[in-house]
Amino acid sequence: MFATLKFAALLLAVVVCWATQDYDYNDTEIDEEPTLGDSQYGSLWPLPQKVQISTVVFKLSGASFHIFDAKESSCGASCRLLQNAYRRYDEYIFTSSRKQGQNKSKKALACDMSELQVWITSADSECDSYPSVTSDESYKLSVDSPVAVLKAPKVWGALRGLETFSQLVYKDEYGAKSINRTDIHDFPRFAHRGLLLDTSRHFLPIKVILANLEAMAWNKFNVFHWHIVDDPSFPYLSRTFPQLSQHGAYHPYTHVYTPSDVKMIIEFARLRGIRVIPEFDTPGHTQSWGKGQKDLLTPCYSGASPSGSFGPVNPTLNTTYDFMSMFFKEVSTVFPDAYVHLGGDEVDFSCWKSNPDIQKFMEQQGFETDYSKLESFYIQRLLDIVTTTNKGYMIWQEVFDNGVKLKSDTVVHVWMGNKVEEELQKVTKAGFTTILSAPWYLDYISYGQDWQKYYRAEPLSFKGTDAQKKLVIGGEACLWGEYVDATNLTPRLWPRASAVGERLWSDRDVRDLNDAYSRLAKHRCRMVQRGIPAEPLFTGYCAHEYKGV
Amino acid sequence: MFATLKFAALLLAVVVCWATQDYDYNDTEIDEEPTLGDSQYGSLWPLPQKVQISTVVFKLSGASFHIFDAKESSCGASCRLLQNAYRRYDEYIFTSSRKQGQNKSKKALACDMSELQVWITSADSECDSYPSVTSDESYKLSVDSPVAVLKAPKVWGALRGLETFSQLVYKDEYGAKSINRTDIHDFPRFAHRGLLLDTSRHFLPIKVILANLEAMAWNKFNVFHWHIVDDPSFPYLSRTFPQLSQHGAYHPYTHVYTPSDVKMIIEFARLRGIRVIPEFDTPGHTQSWGKGQKDLLTPCYSGASPSGSFGPVNPTLNTTYDFMSMFFKEVSTVFPDAYVHLGGDEVDFSCWKSNPDIQKFMEQQGFETDYSKLESFYIQRLLDIVTTTNKGYMIWQEVFDNGVKLKSDTVVHVWMGNKVEEELQKVTKAGFTTILSAPWYLDYISYGQDWQKYYRAEPLSFKGTDAQKKLVIGGEACLWGEYVDATNLTPRLWPRASAVGERLWSDRDVRDLNDAYSRLAKHRCRMVQRGIPAEPLFTGYCAHEYKGV
Repeated sequence: MFATLKFAALLLAVVVCWATQDYDYNDTEIDEEPTLGDSQYGSLWPLPQKVQISTVVFKLSGASFHIFDAKESSCGASCRLLQNAYRRYDEYIFTSSRKQGQNKSKKALACDMSELQVWITSADSECDSYPSVTSDESYKLSVDSPVAVLKAPKVWGALRGLETFSQLVYKDEYGAKSINRTDIHDFPRFAHRGLLLDTSRHFLPIKVILANLEAMAWNKFNVFHWHIVDDPSFPYLSRTFPQLSQHGAYHPYTHVYTPSDVKMIIEFARLRGIRVIPEFDTPGHTQSWGKGQKDLLTPCYSGASPSGSFGPVNPTLNTTYDFMSMFFKEVSTVFPDAYVHLGGDEVDFSCWKSNPDIQKFMEQQGFETDYSKLESFYIQRLLDIVTTTNKGYMIWQEVFDNGVKLKSDTVVHVWMGNKVEEELQKVTKAGFTTILSAPWYLDYISYGQDWQKYYRAEPLSFKGTDAQKKLVIGGEACLWGEYVDATNLTPRLWPRASAVGERLWSDRDVRDLNDAYSRLAKHRCRMVQRGIPAEPLFTGYCAHEYKGV
Repeated sequence: MFATLKFAALLLAVVVCWATQDYDYNDTEIDEEPTLGDSQYGSLWPLPQKVQISTVVFKLSGASFHIFDAKESSCGASCRLLQNAYRRYDEYIFTSSRKQGQNKSKKALACDMSELQVWITSADSECDSYPSVTSDESYKLSVDSPVAVLKAPKVWGALRGLETFSQLVYKDEYGAKSINRTDIHDFPRFAHRGLLLDTSRHFLPIKVILANLEAMAWNKFNVFHWHIVDDPSFPYLSRTFPQLSQHGAYHPYTHVYTPSDVKMIIEFARLRGIRVIPEFDTPGHTQSWGKGQKDLLTPCYSGASPSGSFGPVNPTLNTTYDFMSMFFKEVSTVFPDAYVHLGGDEVDFSCWKSNPDIQKFMEQQGFETDYSKLESFYIQRLLDIVTTTNKGYMIWQEVFDNGVKLKSDTVVHVWMGNKVEEELQKVTKAGFTTILSAPWYLDYISYGQDWQKYYRAEPLSFKGTDAQKKLVIGGEACLWGEYVDATNLTPRLWPRASAVGERLWSDRDVRDLNDAYSRLAKHRCRMVQRGIPAEPLFTGYCAHEYKGV
């Protein structure tokens, strides 16, 4: 009986290995025949640039399958980033199925996929570097028996390819871990694929930030735009100015990010190929700064006397710029990324207008009553300060719109919902790189499948030259914090942000909603099984429902 | 030094006991001076009918405070419902602060609140009964040193009063558990305060249902309307017809509610004073029934031949009524509540129209082409069947609108968004009791503080006699399942459903949005601290943020 069973299993394996009908993504017009059923691309998300999936199936045995460094790889056991990733993906692939005490020495069958070799081809793997906007995230993945090979010039591509490999593994009808013969050549369409989280309107516990960095990696995002402080609270614990969080955080101990918290978040992100770009938004959105830093904000006047309330940063005092110099010097050392986001959005002039000292300064400078000139005066000096820290800067679109002189490597962040295409035209015509967020404000919610709206948005639909379009380096999904905290942020973000993830990674022509629905529904169940409460797209179920409440 | 400290503490206690400015809810026009700050009613939610809170403060020591049965109580240590509730509320009140090894024999100080006595005043406490629409939920709570007394005719009122007592306890600035001298006389404005959850469009794990029953109790809801089956899936495991879930559930083992699951949910609800009313919606919304029960649904025709798809329950076959008799006989024994919800909404006639057998039956019955007559024919027979099981029934408003003859104790469930007041007028004029859900479809989401919309809705704003208004016995918040499952249901429900909870419990005049905001923000932080991920109302924070992801 045992022998018979073994033979039957072998026979089945051989049959499974025979059928060889190949699909070629490039040969197929996926828009032509929308299917409500399964996608030929299984659960791949975001869809790789070039995919060939055959019907030949290999099995992965939890007892024998392993991820290894290829012998030829420029980077091996000493690369913590890769070893860490191997462990992570091994766990994802064999969730609960690689049981303790399993015979690790089991010999692989003929049709087993015994290992995945990871081969870093460039002499400098960048294993110990931080990712950047120029990081090479490309990879080639060849899944064929008895070994699969993942080739990437740098570790960043290897990380993306490991995720893709894990997405190719599925359970067959008998519950056996399986993978089809597959060839993939993949690279991102846009270099900047970001997610903005806001830790000022609500404090987000470290655990929540880490969990969402993890989910970002599954969706091939590579920038965490950390909108760390704003009007309501200042949770960033500054070594230089500890009074800022002491008085400006919701709570000076429980609702702050200490230097070691920040360090941990940056390293956790780096290990997943994710940049951390902090935003310290000024001169508006700074109410919480004023609680710990005297004279930083403009006192508002009611008639002839101060009203007791405060407006934007006071741009007329030298102490303001002294403070900013010291503050951004610290920021430039704490955050390794080459860029810092300086905000500059939504400056309300009413308080400046009410203040007689500001009025006097306006006269002296010859600004007459044009307060946008005062705003530009401030921003200009701030940009000069940040430039001395050797950082590049990102700014919200108003700074560009107001005609502030910007360094050539400035990234202009387009967020306003009206005249988006005109803005992209203008910014790129002026020669600036830009990223887009206007269509992707995920804090705005509505009934139904709004992921489709995010998915349909096309960053390059504006009129412009090829050179202009090349200046659009990507986009960011923004989840502002008015209505989200640890209780609801994660399900509100996923899989809605996944739609943005595919738009920014995959080819422009990947836009079939039915195919996307089929893949995304599976991708979201995978996120749920990996422990992230990604909400449902619509009626249906996952084999493994979320285990929390 | 030790003696000095002790003396200081005593002095402080005396001072705290001195100030005696009383607030009287009935004396105060809470609408007149909207305050953005704290409510004088602290974190009470829903607001009790009559509240007097004094400024005299007592301390609760985790070492000495306990909840006891009053000596005079008609119901004591043998009442599992109460003992269970005492333990629950003891834990809520002393979350993490009653540490192991603490000296339990510590003597109470003069100003300590040493115990809460629970006194059931009626001879029949109803400890072992199920709650019903006529259950007495009233209670009186007197908080005064050294004992607080909670008097209630029945255990149901005691449960409501225990929740209120726990809401009165707060931490003072030194972190000491405190409670003000308080007198409360409370009872619900409406007898039926329900929440509909839908376990067909998405399966909800038992854990999620129990957690939300718990949260319902905190908000003084008393009906769990379990929309257990519908088109997409049939998770109810029927002993009589196990094939229904075997073929109709998303998965026959992992996505079903077994008889013991159902029993557990009903008992968990009972211990919290919550009725479980199951809905088995027919003749529409029954696609999933058809998978396990041959010939139950109407075969749709495409021209002269069956199309392979199916429509509503087939009302022309005797086998249909045989099936329904057996099925509802089982339902009547599994669910102890006096009512069952029979649905009857949204019947699509197109499939009936396409079927030649149905057409023939229509002719025989003399219905001509009026398919609502066929619908009524079916419902009428179903109601007769259910009547023989000695259950009352609830039905969605269409059944009433279509003129089906209803038993006098039928509850008509008003859900349609248009002409709500007219419908309430009509239903109550016809002498039927009714509950309202139209303004409280919580599955519809929008940006911002939509809880205010739910809060403003007033069930008795329609024109009608006092007798008519008395027929409105309450309402239900509905969270239909298209877009919610275990990942996002709980934060989407709370505290939005809390707004409905106060509307249905508190006095009609309790409608000050500022006061409500202040209390509800605290109430939601309390829910978070008790482990439920209730989402934020707006920008801000909780002292104890949610610990999950």
